[in-house]
Amino acid sequence: MEIVIMLYDGVTVLDAFGPYEVLRIGEGSTIKFVAKNKGLIQLDSKMGYVHADYSFSEVASADILVIPGGYQQNPMNDKETLDWIRKIHETTKYTTTVCTGSLILGAAGLLNGIEATSHWATYDILHSLGAIPTEGRVIRHGKIITAAGVSAGIDMALNLVAWEWGEDAGKAAQLILEYDPQPPFDSGSPKKASPQLLEQVSAKIKEIEKQKTETDW
Amino acid sequence: MEIVIMLYDGVTVLDAFGPYEVLRIGEGSTIKFVAKNKGLIQLDSKMGYVHADYSFSEVASADILVIPGGYQQNPMNDKETLDWIRKIHETTKYTTTVCTGSLILGAAGLLNGIEATSHWATYDILHSLGAIPTEGRVIRHGKIITAAGVSAGIDMALNLVAWEWGEDAGKAAQLILEYDPQPPFDSGSPKKASPQLLEQVSAKIKEIEKQKTETDW
Repeated sequence: MEIVIMLYDGVTVLDAFGPYEVLRIGEGSTIKFVAKNKGLIQLDSKMGYVHADYSFSEVASADILVIPGGYQQNPMNDKETLDWIRKIHETTKYTTTVCTGSLILGAAGLLNGIEATSHWATYDILHSLGAIPTEGRVIRHGKIITAAGVSAGIDMALNLVAWEWGEDAGKAAQLILEYDPQPPFDSGSPKKASPQLLEQVSAKIKEIEKQKTETDW
Repeated sequence: MEIVIMLYDGVTVLDAFGPYEVLRIGEGSTIKFVAKNKGLIQLDSKMGYVHADYSFSEVASADILVIPGGYQQNPMNDKETLDWIRKIHETTKYTTTVCTGSLILGAAGLLNGIEATSHWATYDILHSLGAIPTEGRVIRHGKIITAAGVSAGIDMALNLVAWEWGEDAGKAAQLILEYDPQPPFDSGSPKKASPQLLEQVSAKIKEIEKQKTETDW
């Protein structure tokens, strides 16, 4: 299985490395980190970098494509990126997104009339791109798999391992990563958070988005 | 809060980027990725790279130090790395590890007689380094916080945010990351996995360790 993880400046790194850490365990899997131009990729926090080892021009196919979220306006408005996604999608067994990665897939025209999810704060944008926003941790429509915000990429990848390598392989991956979640609270979704917290976090996310559009991404 | 995340060739990247993604949300936090020598850092899978922006010589203190796991023999046997860890530890408010990062902290002599955890498959090594291996997702002993395997770094960091910035800040981080885990199985710890799976995965981990010692790490 050739797994291709797309990177871009402004990426939310856990969206990419959560699935990576799970999928790498799949027997015989190879993983390529690919960006428009290979080299250093700045994180959305601007506090670090990861590395893309391949440029779009060097990768023409994938068994699994993973599109992480982040400051998604960048790739959403880049024709070369959207063309590359469409080209790779034609070759995939699974085309997957994490968090606002689904907005990029939507911008590529690949979610028209399709049930999909995204970070909970971005359902309106997802809808505007032609998708049918659907609540859920992992939403599957044929070979298109979309996951909810950030950490949901781990759950998505465990499902992928089970679908592709069998349930025992998925359970083995879970045990290797000691993925026995014990968050100290239970406010990881809009339905579980208090109304006050939800309002406060929604305002904070809007503020972050505003700051981003004022910077040089 | 200055957060310093140590990197090294052979790092398990989710150990580092799980906590990063949570801690970056803390108000006023800055994060530095630091390695013996700055530059590209190869992942334990050898299928990608991240980047250290600072060398040890450029970082003399930290409020929170995060030591991720991975192919830990590398830093465990490097005097310069252990000296640096001891120096930083003197300045920290929290010294933390994820997965086999605790073995590195143990090798630095900082876990003598202290209750600590690690990846479940490495309790024996943890014991040989003077620590008291203790089952638990996140184990706190004063300012030393150790987390279990790989994914436990996310839970650890949520606790850290709550301790340092308050419980509401921790809940907000959880909501921002949509950390509402829904793994498709329940085999994320040795106690929850079937005996057959546990045996199979233990053998696989031993095989991986053997392969690593035969390579050029």
